[in-house]
Amino acid sequence: MPVKLISPNPEDLIDIKGVKIGVASAEIRKVGRSDVLVLVFQEGTKVGGVFTQNRYCAAPVKICLSHLSQTQGQVRALLVNTGCANAGTGEIGFQNGLESCQFLAELLGCESNQILPCSTGVIMEYLPMERFLPGIALALQRAQSSSSNSHTRSDSWLDAAVAIMTTDTVPKAVSRQVGTLGVSVTGIAKGSGMIRPNMATMLGFIVTDAVVSAETLQLWSKKLADLSFNRITVDGDTSTNDTFLLFATGASNRIVEEGPEAEALWESLLAVSQSLSEALVRDGEGATKFIRIIVEGARNVDEANRVGFSVAQSPLVKTAFFASDPNLGRILAAVGNSGVPDLCVDKVDLYLDEILVVKQGGRDVHYTESEGCRVLAQDEINVRINLGRGDAETVVYTCDLSHDYVSINADYRS
Amino acid sequence: MPVKLISPNPEDLIDIKGVKIGVASAEIRKVGRSDVLVLVFQEGTKVGGVFTQNRYCAAPVKICLSHLSQTQGQVRALLVNTGCANAGTGEIGFQNGLESCQFLAELLGCESNQILPCSTGVIMEYLPMERFLPGIALALQRAQSSSSNSHTRSDSWLDAAVAIMTTDTVPKAVSRQVGTLGVSVTGIAKGSGMIRPNMATMLGFIVTDAVVSAETLQLWSKKLADLSFNRITVDGDTSTNDTFLLFATGASNRIVEEGPEAEALWESLLAVSQSLSEALVRDGEGATKFIRIIVEGARNVDEANRVGFSVAQSPLVKTAFFASDPNLGRILAAVGNSGVPDLCVDKVDLYLDEILVVKQGGRDVHYTESEGCRVLAQDEINVRINLGRGDAETVVYTCDLSHDYVSINADYRS
Repeated sequence: MPVKLISPNPEDLIDIKGVKIGVASAEIRKVGRSDVLVLVFQEGTKVGGVFTQNRYCAAPVKICLSHLSQTQGQVRALLVNTGCANAGTGEIGFQNGLESCQFLAELLGCESNQILPCSTGVIMEYLPMERFLPGIALALQRAQSSSSNSHTRSDSWLDAAVAIMTTDTVPKAVSRQVGTLGVSVTGIAKGSGMIRPNMATMLGFIVTDAVVSAETLQLWSKKLADLSFNRITVDGDTSTNDTFLLFATGASNRIVEEGPEAEALWESLLAVSQSLSEALVRDGEGATKFIRIIVEGARNVDEANRVGFSVAQSPLVKTAFFASDPNLGRILAAVGNSGVPDLCVDKVDLYLDEILVVKQGGRDVHYTESEGCRVLAQDEINVRINLGRGDAETVVYTCDLSHDYVSINADYRS
Repeated sequence: MPVKLISPNPEDLIDIKGVKIGVASAEIRKVGRSDVLVLVFQEGTKVGGVFTQNRYCAAPVKICLSHLSQTQGQVRALLVNTGCANAGTGEIGFQNGLESCQFLAELLGCESNQILPCSTGVIMEYLPMERFLPGIALALQRAQSSSSNSHTRSDSWLDAAVAIMTTDTVPKAVSRQVGTLGVSVTGIAKGSGMIRPNMATMLGFIVTDAVVSAETLQLWSKKLADLSFNRITVDGDTSTNDTFLLFATGASNRIVEEGPEAEALWESLLAVSQSLSEALVRDGEGATKFIRIIVEGARNVDEANRVGFSVAQSPLVKTAFFASDPNLGRILAAVGNSGVPDLCVDKVDLYLDEILVVKQGGRDVHYTESEGCRVLAQDEINVRINLGRGDAETVVYTCDLSHDYVSINADYRS
C-alpha cells in the first residue's frame, strides 16, 4: 500500500515536443499487460545518463554505455522492456540486446547505436525474442501513429509509466513547465524493490524539449542522480539494471546552456527527479510509512550519507517503524554501525520530528515514550540526527520493513 | 523455529574446575525468568576478550575494556544481565554499570575492576537498580552454595545459557574435553537478532580450566572471533553490546602456552566457538533455513568476506531462500554489489550444493530450474561462489528472512 501516493492525473502530465510514445504487450512474463515501451525522438535529440555501479550490470546497461560513447549522446529511440532484466544472461543476453536494437533501428531508419535499451524484471532469464521483436514493432507503430503532429498526447506519458512497472503499485510520472523559458519537462520512473540506487535508479527517464548539449545533459544527469535517486533506499539492494537517462529533444528551439536560464531548467529537472525518487520510496515494497532520515552536523556529505543509509537500511530500525514502536536505541545502534571511524557518539542528538529524544549521546531527560509513540504512529516521519562535528548534511528517504515486503519478495516469481 | 538445533543435553556439558555459577531473576524486563548470571572464578583466573566495533558501544562494554586494561586480564567474576542493554543511557548508564560491579565486588571481597559486566536487551532504557542489585546478591549466593567442592554442576551451565537468552528460542552451550591434556572447555552464547558480530558476538563466554596467560587468551579470543562469531549474520545489524570473553581458571594446574598442547587446546576452543556461532544462526530470528555462503577463488580473505556478507545480508536473497525460490539472479546481483572494485563477473561460477548454476558469469546451459528447486527446498543449503581470481576463501553463515523475523522485531518490546 503506497504511502500518500496516487496515480498521476493524465491532465497534469505535459506533452514534450519532439518525442512520440508507443507501448505494447509482448507477454514477456505476464499475459495482457504492457511490457514494451518505445520513445521515438526527433533527430538531433541529445541524451546523458548514469547507470548502476553493480559489477553484475545487465546486458542493456553495457549496450547503453557502448552506444552513448559511440554517438556522443545522439539518440533516436529508447527501448524498454519489463518482465526480464536480461542480467546474468552472458553472451546470449548481450546478443539479444543488440538484436533488439538492430531490429528497431531498421524499422526506424537510423543507426543501431542510436537506440538505448533498458530492461527490468527477473534476473538470469533470457528475453523471449520471438515475442519481444513483434512487441517492439507494434509499440513503434503505435508511437508513429500516436499523433499526426510532432508531439505526444499526455495520456501517452501515463501509458509509458504504466508499461515500465514491475512490483510497483502506482505509476510514477511528473511534469514541470519552465514558464520563463517556454520549455517543459516530463519524467517517468519505476521501481519499488531492489532499490538502493547507486548512480541511478531502477529506471528513470526525464525528457525536456529544451535544446541542451550532450555534455551538459551528462553532467546534469550525474548531479541529479546524486541529489535524488541516489538518496533513496527500500531494501539496500542495488539493482543490476539501474538506469537514469536525461533527454533533450530540442523541439522548443530554446537553447539552454548556462546562466539564469540553465538554473531555471535545472530547478525543474531537480524537482521532477526528487518527486519521482520520493514516489519510488512511497511505493516501496510493503511500505506503510515514508521516512526522511535527515543527517546534520557531519564533516562532509559522504559521512552524512553513510550515517543516513546505515539507519535507513537497518532491518531492526525498519521493523520498529512498521510496529510504530519507538525502540529508538536501534537508531543509535545503526548510527554507531555507520563506519564513520572517529564518530564521537557523545555529541549525537536525535530528534523524531521536533521531539528531542537523545541529547549528546544519551536519552534526553525530558523525552517521554508517549511522545515517541505519537510520532511513530504517523505515516510520515522525520528522523533528524545531528552528529555535532561539522556543517554538512543530507536527507535519505526510506520506508519501513513490513510483512508485505517478505510476501512480495517470497512470491515475486510465482 | 530453529533449524536443526535442540537444547543441549545437560549431561553433555562439562563442569569446569575453578568456576561457580549462579543465576537469579531480577525481573529486569519480564517476571519470573532468569535474567542475572554470575560466574565466580577462582583467584588467578585469566581472561581475554573482544568487543563490538559499534561506535555506540554500551556502558558495560566500556567498563569491560577499562577493567581489562587495569587488571591486565585478572578476573574474579562475570556479571551478566538480560532485558536491558544499558546502551544509549549516557552517564547514568555508565554509573549504573560501575555500581553493579562495586556491589558484587564488595560481596565477593575483591577489587571492583576484577568484575566484568555484560548486558543485553533493549537499548536506551536504564537498568532498574532497585531490582538488579538484589538479583546480583541472590545469584552470587547461589553460586557460592552451588557446590561444596571447587567445581560446578553441569546443569548449572545449562541454567547459565538459559539466563542469558533474549529472543533466543534455544539455549546455546557446548563442551569439549581435551583428552590428551586432561583439561576441559565449556562455552555459552546468546543472540538471534541484531546479529552481525564485528569482532565478537552478541554475548559469548568460553571457560577452560587450563592454565593460560592473559596475553595468549587475548590473542586467541581475537583469532577465535574472526574464525567463528565474525563470520555469521542474521540481519546485518551489529549490536551495541557484542562481547566475547575467553576465561582460563587454571584449576587443572595444566600449563598450556605453546607447541602441540596449545594446538590441542586451540582446536577445542575453535570447535566450541564455531559450534556456538553456528547455533546462533540456526536460532536466528524467524529462521527456517541454515545457509552456508562459501566464497572461493578470492584474492584475499577480506574480499571473500565482503562477497560472502553481501550475499548473506541481501534481503532479496534471504526472502528467495525463505520462499524456496531459485531466483538465483539475486545472488549474482549481491555479488556484484559487494564493493570489490575490479571484480570481473565473467569469471564467477555459482553452485547450489553441487549443482553448477552459473558458469563464467552466465547461466550454465545444463542447469535446470527443477534442480534449483530441489536444493532450495532443503533446510540446509550450501551456496558456493568461485570468483576465479585467487586462492583465498571464507565461509559466512546466515539464515533466511521470513515473516517471523518481521513479527519478532515488530513485537519485541510489546
